[in-house]
Amino acid sequence: MSAEGDEAIQRLIALMARLPGLGPRSARRAVLQLVKKKGALLLPLAEAMREVAETARECVNCGNIATRDLCEICADPKRRTGQICVVEDVADLWAMERAQVFRGRYHVLGGTLSALDAVGPEELRIPRLVERVREEEASEIILALAATIDGQTTAHYIADQLPGTSVTSLAQGVPVGGELDYLDDGTITAALKARRAL
Amino acid sequence: MSAEGDEAIQRLIALMARLPGLGPRSARRAVLQLVKKKGALLLPLAEAMREVAETARECVNCGNIATRDLCEICADPKRRTGQICVVEDVADLWAMERAQVFRGRYHVLGGTLSALDAVGPEELRIPRLVERVREEEASEIILALAATIDGQTTAHYIADQLPGTSVTSLAQGVPVGGELDYLDDGTITAALKARRAL
Repeated sequence: MSAEGDEAIQRLIALMARLPGLGPRSARRAVLQLVKKKGALLLPLAEAMREVAETARECVNCGNIATRDLCEICADPKRRTGQICVVEDVADLWAMERAQVFRGRYHVLGGTLSALDAVGPEELRIPRLVERVREEEASEIILALAATIDGQTTAHYIADQLPGTSVTSLAQGVPVGGELDYLDDGTITAALKARRAL
Repeated sequence: MSAEGDEAIQRLIALMARLPGLGPRSARRAVLQLVKKKGALLLPLAEAMREVAETARECVNCGNIATRDLCEICADPKRRTGQICVVEDVADLWAMERAQVFRGRYHVLGGTLSALDAVGPEELRIPRLVERVREEEASEIILALAATIDGQTTAHYIADQLPGTSVTSLAQGVPVGGELDYLDDGTITAALKARRAL
């Protein structure tokens, strides 16, 4: 046997250690906490994970996490159509939603174009974005992409694919080299208000 | 709806945020990672949690985490009897085991005596320790408790309960005010070798 008890415990520690933000030591502490709080934490967590594993999927329209074919935002009639905010991933969509300033819909690319990682437009749900702009007769595409080289390359590529559509991008406040998920709500609000034509 | 998608996802984030080492932001990142790696991480994790929830219990002898009535250490005939190492909790037992220097058995108190938190000997599996010392004819009790005031109070209380038994305590290397779980193996080894009579 190893230092951390039996096989099931060890397996749980090894899996927990693969979560972002947890290393081997914090995974051990987390597992001890889970075992101590079996009824209040471990069982509900196992159940919540099973439920998410069974129901979570990608929204067929925008790529957001959904539990039905359409995510709650795409299915919400109160969300404005005609304005699509393009984000790199779901964490960025959540960051935008926390700012509570955008009332349109989203399009989750699933990454940015990257020559180094061989990520092309086909990998990124960009063709689907072009389709949506036509189908939904979108009047404005707001690019909420990171201020990195790959993010800006992606922004320009998308603008090129949408001639005749107004393409804006978050401007003021996004720190150079920064990630959208780490911004505070106020900065996101300022950036959305000061968006500029690309 | 809230910013982080549907109810099941929100519940999972809220539960994950209660783990030590994770806050709301890292819980969100962890959940996104889980949803992305459904087959490789989310499902195995849900299954491992369910298994641990079903099998994990306290060893009836020593208080360690076990999957049967006796933990693997108490059930192991190769572990020396007659030498009992007393630790505060299972994390400390794991830290001792990682140092691979102690070949006897353990007794997990489940805390330390604390007037402030109203923790008395009955809450701490100390009566069971006194029983074990008699039953197993233990020749030495090694106290591996934190070098805090509560830890040392507990050490002296235990020594008082066991007249005629050799009670030693980890000495060299345990930093004053430090926690056992945070020590490196070398320090634990040195402390075990330099243990002194209480």
